[in-house]
Amino acid sequence: MTTPAPRRRGRPGHDLDAVLSAAVLLFNERGYDATSMFDIAESLGITKSSVYHHISGKEQLLQMAMDRALDGLFEAAEDVTRLDRPAIERLEQLIRRSVLVLAERFEFVTVLLRVRGNTAVEQHALSRRREFDTVVTELVKQAQAEGGVRPDVDPATAARLLLGMVNSLTEWYRPRPGGADAIADAVSTVAFEGLRM
Amino acid sequence: MTTPAPRRRGRPGHDLDAVLSAAVLLFNERGYDATSMFDIAESLGITKSSVYHHISGKEQLLQMAMDRALDGLFEAAEDVTRLDRPAIERLEQLIRRSVLVLAERFEFVTVLLRVRGNTAVEQHALSRRREFDTVVTELVKQAQAEGGVRPDVDPATAARLLLGMVNSLTEWYRPRPGGADAIADAVSTVAFEGLRM
Repeated sequence: MTTPAPRRRGRPGHDLDAVLSAAVLLFNERGYDATSMFDIAESLGITKSSVYHHISGKEQLLQMAMDRALDGLFEAAEDVTRLDRPAIERLEQLIRRSVLVLAERFEFVTVLLRVRGNTAVEQHALSRRREFDTVVTELVKQAQAEGGVRPDVDPATAARLLLGMVNSLTEWYRPRPGGADAIADAVSTVAFEGLRM
Repeated sequence: MTTPAPRRRGRPGHDLDAVLSAAVLLFNERGYDATSMFDIAESLGITKSSVYHHISGKEQLLQMAMDRALDGLFEAAEDVTRLDRPAIERLEQLIRRSVLVLAERFEFVTVLLRVRGNTAVEQHALSRRREFDTVVTELVKQAQAEGGVRPDVDPATAARLLLGMVNSLTEWYRPRPGGADAIADAVSTVAFEGLRM
């Protein structure tokens, strides 16, 4: 769960969400290590102590950013589990939903995917990512057992290639209204139907 | 072209290739910015001035690393252009070869894919990457015109998803003998045949 934003606790218009958004923009632009709490305050036009009204420090912002991304992915996984449909359809839904989460929470997912596990907070996020990989791998296995997915591809490899395609969006996609559905279609077509005529 | 390694110019066994390999390992482990020339020398058990026998500085090492990755990809693109085969087969070959380049030059490609364009050297590498994307996009277009690739996917999007799958290997693949061919098969199967039975 993400922490609910305490409204109007600092200067009007600079609640926790605003601080988090400003931080995440800087993390993606300059890198997490190169961003200071002063930089975050400066980009909002407020003092550093106003920023500390909202949060304990930079690492809390990193954790919150990664949680926004991961919570979105796990909510999608839960919704898909509840569907009374063949595994291949649940898998396809989950891949489409992952594209939509990435498009909606673009800056948060970008932060998440650049993390290398240098601290306990980063290690925790990496272990949640691996957990999500396992959810996708298990869906591929089930779909193979049901005859929905071809049996000649290793399930863990298939899961990583599917998520590799989705995650590559942080490198080249720029969010725009209606854009995410078209990309979700393209990912789904390539992954499930293949490019060959 | 990569600069040929001047053999035995520094201490025996510490030629340019050894310096480059040591540098690239550190760049990937700690990040380029966090790696100093002293760190590189220390990891080889030689002095910093011995390292400067071989190269002008850290940025030259970065450039050489990225060139090794990019030269491999462009050699593959040239070889494929010479094939007298339908575009879809040339496209498939190029994607397979890209997987093999990534596996053979794993540490160099990893350096390349983490670069964000903060300097002229990085900008140049990014522009060569975009040039490679264009080569793949053009092959998709040709293959669509020949009826080899389905017409309902935007060629630039298809190219980015194909390369997104290939590039994701730097995140999860660990090179081992014979491993690259199996991964090239899996990428090719997912991308061209699709997962659906």
